[in-house]
Amino acid sequence: MSEEKYGPNHPATLISELCKLFYNNGWVTGTGGGISIRDVENQPNIVYIAPSGIQKERLSPDEMFVVELPGKILQTPNDDESRKRNLDLPDNYQYKPLACTPLFLSCYNLRDAGACIHTHSQNAVMATLIFEDKVEFSMSHIEQIKALPQLEVNRETGKVEKVGSMQFFDTMVLPIIENTPHEEDLTETLQEAIVKYPGATAVLVRRHGIYVWGENVWKAKVYNEAIDYLLELAIKMHQNGIALVKK
Amino acid sequence: MSEEKYGPNHPATLISELCKLFYNNGWVTGTGGGISIRDVENQPNIVYIAPSGIQKERLSPDEMFVVELPGKILQTPNDDESRKRNLDLPDNYQYKPLACTPLFLSCYNLRDAGACIHTHSQNAVMATLIFEDKVEFSMSHIEQIKALPQLEVNRETGKVEKVGSMQFFDTMVLPIIENTPHEEDLTETLQEAIVKYPGATAVLVRRHGIYVWGENVWKAKVYNEAIDYLLELAIKMHQNGIALVKK
Amino acid sequence: MSEEKYGPNHPATLISELCKLFYNNGWVTGTGGGISIRDVENQPNIVYIAPSGIQKERLSPDEMFVVELPGKILQTPNDDESRKRNLDLPDNYQYKPLACTPLFLSCYNLRDAGACIHTHSQNAVMATLIFEDKVEFSMSHIEQIKALPQLEVNRETGKVEKVGSMQFFDTMVLPIIENTPHEEDLTETLQEAIVKYPGATAVLVRRHGIYVWGENVWKAKVYNEAIDYLLELAIKMHQNGIALVKK
Amino acid sequence: MSEEKYGPNHPATLISELCKLFYNNGWVTGTGGGISIRDVENQPNIVYIAPSGIQKERLSPDEMFVVELPGKILQTPNDDESRKRNLDLPDNYQYKPLACTPLFLSCYNLRDAGACIHTHSQNAVMATLIFEDKVEFSMSHIEQIKALPQLEVNRETGKVEKVGSMQFFDTMVLPIIENTPHEEDLTETLQEAIVKYPGATAVLVRRHGIYVWGENVWKAKVYNEAIDYLLELAIKMHQNGIALVKK
Repeated sequence: MSEEKYGPNHPATLISELCKLFYNNGWVTGTGGGISIRDVENQPNIVYIAPSGIQKERLSPDEMFVVELPGKILQTPNDDESRKRNLDLPDNYQYKPLACTPLFLSCYNLRDAGACIHTHSQNAVMATLIFEDKVEFSMSHIEQIKALPQLEVNRETGKVEKVGSMQFFDTMVLPIIENTPHEEDLTETLQEAIVKYPGATAVLVRRHGIYVWGENVWKAKVYNEAIDYLLELAIKMHQNGIALVKK
Repeated sequence: MSEEKYGPNHPATLISELCKLFYNNGWVTGTGGGISIRDVENQPNIVYIAPSGIQKERLSPDEMFVVELPGKILQTPNDDESRKRNLDLPDNYQYKPLACTPLFLSCYNLRDAGACIHTHSQNAVMATLIFEDKVEFSMSHIEQIKALPQLEVNRETGKVEKVGSMQFFDTMVLPIIENTPHEEDLTETLQEAIVKYPGATAVLVRRHGIYVWGENVWKAKVYNEAIDYLLELAIKMHQNGIALVKK
Repeated sequence: MSEEKYGPNHPATLISELCKLFYNNGWVTGTGGGISIRDVENQPNIVYIAPSGIQKERLSPDEMFVVELPGKILQTPNDDESRKRNLDLPDNYQYKPLACTPLFLSCYNLRDAGACIHTHSQNAVMATLIFEDKVEFSMSHIEQIKALPQLEVNRETGKVEKVGSMQFFDTMVLPIIENTPHEEDLTETLQEAIVKYPGATAVLVRRHGIYVWGENVWKAKVYNEAIDYLLELAIKMHQNGIALVKK
Repeated sequence: MSEEKYGPNHPATLISELCKLFYNNGWVTGTGGGISIRDVENQPNIVYIAPSGIQKERLSPDEMFVVELPGKILQTPNDDESRKRNLDLPDNYQYKPLACTPLFLSCYNLRDAGACIHTHSQNAVMATLIFEDKVEFSMSHIEQIKALPQLEVNRETGKVEKVGSMQFFDTMVLPIIENTPHEEDLTETLQEAIVKYPGATAVLVRRHGIYVWGENVWKAKVYNEAIDYLLELAIKMHQNGIALVKK
C-alpha cells in the first residue's frame, strides 16, 4: 500500500517498519518512545517524525509528521485527505506531534544526526535507577562497545565528527539527565548534555528511557541495539557484583 | 475467511487478533485470561466476549459470545451452524462463556468501559506475591505512568470520567483483591474495588492476574501494556532494593 | 505440501507445527525434546512420533515414525521413497526413533494419553535443581493450577480418569525422577512414578526436563503450558523467598 | 530473489537465513557476530563468510565473501555488479570481510569444520565474567550436554574426530581465552586453545562472546544452541548457589 507509494527505503516506510521491530523488543510498548529519520540522501533538511499516542506497531508510512530543519512543521497527517490513516482512529482524529519532537530536533541541529531513536527500554530505566546518585553511566572492556562511534570535536569547525569506532578498552560514558514532568522541558538539559559530552551518541533520561542518534537510520539502529545490549549486560554484571569499568 | 466476513476492526476480529498477540506475550497461555470488546461505535450496548477453555491463540472471530448489556447473552458460538468453528474441537463441542464474564460486565456497567482485558501475567502475579500483606500496589515517578488515564468522579453524574493523563510524579495505585476458588465469586470484591478506587483503570487479583479496562479496545490495550511494563519494572526495582514510590 | 497431504489436524501435521512453537519457546532447542500424538479420533491404536536428532523446528509431517500400540513400529521415514524428507539431510540418512519413545509409550499404555510432550525447558530443570534433595515438586494457590486436570483412580476399572479440573487451593504435586545416562533407562522409574502419582499429568526428570501428557494433543499442550508457567513462577517465588505451598 | 538463485541449502542462503534467526535470539545484534559455512557437499575447499558491519538480519545471499581454504579470498560482494546488494547501503559501498575471518579459517584448517558461528551472546559473556579468574568453563550432569560431540584425537592421523556424543555424566569443558583490542589478534590464542582442548567444539572469549563450530552447518547450529542453553542454565544455577560440576 503506502509502502509501495514511498518505496522500501523512504524515511516514512522505515519509521513504520522499525517501530514494529522496536515494539517487539519492548522498547515502545504502550505508545511510548518514537523514531525520527532525516532524509539524508534526498532532502537533507527534511525530517520525518512518528506521531504521538498511536500504537507504534500499527503506524502506516502515511501517518508521519514532516518537519523542515531547524524546526518548521511542513506537513501533518491531518493535512492530506488522501493519506491512508490508521484504521484504529476515528475519522476526525487530530494527529499530534510527539512531545519529544524538540529533543529529536536538538540531535539534528547540534549533531547533524541522520536519525534519532527514543525508547522506554527497561534496561535504560534500570541503569538510571541502579545508579540513581550518578549523572553518568560508564562501562568498559566489553566487545560490543566497538559497535559505537569514536566521536571528536573538529577544532576548526567546532562540530562533533565520527573519526572511527570505539575500542574494546575504551570507556563508554553516557550522561544521565533528570526527568521532567513535561517531555519538552527536557530539551534544555538534553542540549546541555549533548554539548558537554561530545563523545556520547546517546543520553539516558532518569526513570524514563534513552535518546540515541546516529549519522543515518541504520547507524542509529545499530548504536541503539549495542547500547541496549550493554545496559542489559551491565545490570546483570551489577547484580553479580562485577564492576562495570575494569581497572 | 471470517475476518473478511467481519472486517478488520470488528470486535470479534480484534479479540481474535489480540489473543494471538497476548499469547505471544505469555499473558494467556494455557487458555488462561481473556478479552472482551464493546461495539462502541455501532452498537454500544453489545459486547463480544471470547469463549472459555479454547486455545486463545487459535480463536476465530466466529467463536465469540455476544452479550447485550447489562448482561443478556444474545448469541453463543453454539447457535449458528454456519459459523466457522475452531478446527481443534469435536463437532458436538458446546462453547462455554468465560468464567470472568460477570467481571467484564462489571467494568462495562460501572465504568462505561469500551473493552476489558484479563491476563494471568506473571508480572501481575509476582506483584501481588511480593506485597502479599498489602491491598494496594503503588508506584510513582516513572515516565510510563503517563500512558495511564487521569480519572475523576464527575460530581454531577457520579460517573468516573477521564480528564487527561497521569503525570510523571503521580502515584499509580492499583487495588489488590483476594482470589476466590471460583472466578465468578470475584465479582463482588472487584465491583467494590472499582467503586473504592475511582482513579484506577485496573484491579490486581492476588495469585491470579489482572483486570484492565479502557474507553475503547486500543486504550485498554495501551493501559494493559503500560501497567505490565510498570509491574515488570517494579519487580526488578524491588529486587535491587529501589523504592517503588519516590519520596 | 505435505501439510496439504495430511490435512491441518492430522497428528503428523500437528507434531511438525507444535515443534516450531516449542522451538520458539526454548523447549526443544539443540534437537532436544520431542512430541508424540495418538490418532485418537480415527485410529486410536496408532501413534505418531517425531524422529530423533533432527532440528525440531524444521520437521516436515513426512518425517514421523508411526507406532501401533502397545509398541510395534509400523512405519519409519526411511520406508517410503516418496516422502518429502528434510532438506538438511543427506540422501542416505537413516532416521532413528526418539530415545524417549518407550517413555511416550508408557504414557499411552498406562494412562490412555492422547499425546505426550517432552521438553528440556529450563524452568523444569531449574525446579529439579532448586529442590535437588526432594522427590516431589509441590505448589498451591495459584490460579493457573486450575488449567490442570483433577485425576482420580476409578475403583472399578483401576484406570486413572479425569473427573474435572484442579481447584485454586489444590496442591499440584509432580514427581521428580532421577536422570539416567541413557534416556530409555528412565522407562521403569517413569512408569513407577506414573503409577505412584495417579493425580499427576506430568513427571519431572532431574537435570533433564519434563514429560507431560493429556487426553488429546490440545490438552497436552495446555497442561504443558500451564505447568511451565507454574514452574517459571515458582522459581521467581523461590528467589523472592515466597513459599510455593501456602499454609 | 537471490534465494531462488542459490537454492535453499546453498551456504550463502543459509548464512542469510540463520543470521535472521540469530538476530532474533539476541546473538548478533548491533552487527556483532557472524556465520561462515563451508560448501562441504559440492566444493569442500570453498567457504562462504558474512560481511562485516552489515545488519545481520538484513543480509542477502549475494553479500557473502567467498574464500578458498586455507585462506584466499576468491570473491567479494564488491566484485560483481549484478549482485543484489543490501538496500540500506550507498552505491559505492565497499564490503569488508569480518574481522573474525582468520578465526573462522582457523576452525576450518585445524578442525575440518563444516561451519563456524561467532556470537556476542550475553550468556557467553556472563559466563566469562562470573568466572573471571578461570581459564576454563566446566559443567556436568545436564541432559543437554548429550547434544554435544564426543571428540577424540585419532592417533594415526593426529586429527580430532567425532566418535559419538557426550554422555550425561560427562563434563563439558570450554576454554576461555582473553579478549584483545583487535579481533584478528585473537587468532593465535584461539588456535592454541583449539589444539590444547581437542575435546571442545567451542571457545569462549572473555568479555566478548563465543566461537562454535561443527562438522556441518546444522551440527554447528545445534552445538551453538545447546551450549547457549547450558551457559544460560549455568548462570541461573550459579545465582542459586548450585554447583556447575556435580561431585
